[in-house]
Amino acid sequence: MADPPEESSPVAGEVFRLVEQAKELQDTASSLISRTSRDEDALRQRVATLDSRIKSLRISKHDDKLEEELVRARYVLSEGDAAAFLPSKSHGRFLRMFLGPINVRANRKDVQLKVKEEYNSFRDRTAFLFLCLPTLLLVLRSWIWDGCLPALPVQLYQAWLLYLYTGLALRENILRVNGSDIRPWWIKHHYCAMAMALISLTWDIERGTDCAQKQRGVELFLRWAIMQGVAMMLQNRYQRQRLYTRIALGKARRMDVVWGETAGVEGQLLLLCPVLFVLQGFEAYIGFLLLKTALAGFSSDWQVITCGILLIIMAVGNFANTVQTLVTKSRVKAKIKRGKSRQDLSQVSSDKIYE
Amino acid sequence: MADPPEESSPVAGEVFRLVEQAKELQDTASSLISRTSRDEDALRQRVATLDSRIKSLRISKHDDKLEEELVRARYVLSEGDAAAFLPSKSHGRFLRMFLGPINVRANRKDVQLKVKEEYNSFRDRTAFLFLCLPTLLLVLRSWIWDGCLPALPVQLYQAWLLYLYTGLALRENILRVNGSDIRPWWIKHHYCAMAMALISLTWDIERGTDCAQKQRGVELFLRWAIMQGVAMMLQNRYQRQRLYTRIALGKARRMDVVWGETAGVEGQLLLLCPVLFVLQGFEAYIGFLLLKTALAGFSSDWQVITCGILLIIMAVGNFANTVQTLVTKSRVKAKIKRGKSRQDLSQVSSDKIYE
Repeated sequence: MADPPEESSPVAGEVFRLVEQAKELQDTASSLISRTSRDEDALRQRVATLDSRIKSLRISKHDDKLEEELVRARYVLSEGDAAAFLPSKSHGRFLRMFLGPINVRANRKDVQLKVKEEYNSFRDRTAFLFLCLPTLLLVLRSWIWDGCLPALPVQLYQAWLLYLYTGLALRENILRVNGSDIRPWWIKHHYCAMAMALISLTWDIERGTDCAQKQRGVELFLRWAIMQGVAMMLQNRYQRQRLYTRIALGKARRMDVVWGETAGVEGQLLLLCPVLFVLQGFEAYIGFLLLKTALAGFSSDWQVITCGILLIIMAVGNFANTVQTLVTKSRVKAKIKRGKSRQDLSQVSSDKIYE
Repeated sequence: MADPPEESSPVAGEVFRLVEQAKELQDTASSLISRTSRDEDALRQRVATLDSRIKSLRISKHDDKLEEELVRARYVLSEGDAAAFLPSKSHGRFLRMFLGPINVRANRKDVQLKVKEEYNSFRDRTAFLFLCLPTLLLVLRSWIWDGCLPALPVQLYQAWLLYLYTGLALRENILRVNGSDIRPWWIKHHYCAMAMALISLTWDIERGTDCAQKQRGVELFLRWAIMQGVAMMLQNRYQRQRLYTRIALGKARRMDVVWGETAGVEGQLLLLCPVLFVLQGFEAYIGFLLLKTALAGFSSDWQVITCGILLIIMAVGNFANTVQTLVTKSRVKAKIKRGKSRQDLSQVSSDKIYE
């Protein structure tokens, strides 16, 4: 050794200890990881077995008490900590396409609720912009831009829309993996909206004379976006109230409170549904206007036609899904009124009315 | 009860057992989750303490043996299973923007390597398309389209580019969280490329007379993409060889093999670097051509100017980073030759030469 012993020896001792500790930590980490994955695998197997036994059990329709007990078992399994070990939903093509094979499932219930809470606040933040940005563009058009939209601000807005819908679709897929029972249609709806935003970016924003007619397609697109913002804000209010009820449930871990959930948002739903139907009608109407514009020859780009068709598909899908949700909800309500089975309730209570 | 006892009682017993088991599994899951997170937190603390002790230790420059021991400790800590418990790198704004607060860190080393392997095969698949698609467009332009590109195929290609760069940027951020020491520049480079693809979508693809001149910008963009495909393919080969070495290392868990790694790709690097420099020069040249096109007034859209500037920024950044990596590598090699410290090697061996 080059250094004198009185200097090197305490350092050498320290280095030796560090190497020993590093090896020790390596062993501890290695055994912790393998023990945890062994325990988790075993638990996963037990949960899967119980889940399939509950599902395969057939109970006579008249036995209210037994049915209620079975709902309780199902609820404990699907809403408690054990839910983390239920067979995982596949990550789906969309997540694999963007993220690769990384796992986005959270084990802990509080983390899952945090993800959902953040998703809602993301929707809140964006719903506001969703309403403001297209309104601003249309207002500026008549006040400052003499009825003729310049390309850059519109394109910046469209790029933001594309980001927004991609973010929503990714987050909703992540929520689904984490056990949210969001209806598949609402995710598909966001894929359609992503396609719309992408197509609108390639849309020529023509200027010059008779701009008002040539920009008719863009104008209709902006109106659809404003309408979409209104729908989003209403739904956010509704969803948020439902989530708070669920968090309270998660903390309280009491079955009976779940019945209160449907009642709590009943009034909201009475307001939400007519508004949603009007907005869906308006969506289809704008779709038809776009097609008419294209056929009348004012702006016959393929973009206008495709966006028109997409809007009509989205309107029809939204309508069908809203009606389906309402039918399921009212069927369950009737069952409760008749004092009969509450079996479907744990599934139905979490049906969603997204935009 | 409505059912006769001889039917209801075995079912009732089964339901009772199911409820009991559900409660039991709930308790087991709950205690497993809390025990695991307690153990992991404790280990995380110990690893952090050891890590900071190793980092703060100062050793006399002349003491080769002690330095080598310290490198060993650092290597065990950063490459073994304990690495999963090192202080986590922040997820970063980009991931939070798209995914929200979900955790994308894998605990197990084999999962991390799988993610990296999938990232490489994603790059392989796309590099091929990256080369083919723009080539196909340019070939079809002269063979079938009479020197005039139609809008739709070009825009479809640009949309694919946007998806591709978004996917790469997301995956690279996920790799970074999982302990990959990918240079921050290469991720920023993909942000620039995302911006380019987005801007190119809003780019007017004009048709009609003197199309060749008006489409000059698009043509240059396609040439840049072809060049990018070549760079990507070469780098994939290089990266893949390095990963295989690392997987072997991970399995073998032997320190000494790491020295072989740099040597193993030395020949590759001699081929790769000149090609990279030529491509970077070409990138800057295309940037200048775009600016010239814009200033000459053939297509004076803001898109052409912005893409020109972005290309030049990317070329300069790529050049600076490639040189930096080479300098670090050669400095380390010199150190080894002099038979001196190998201290920096564990850091340097994982420096990357991405496109």
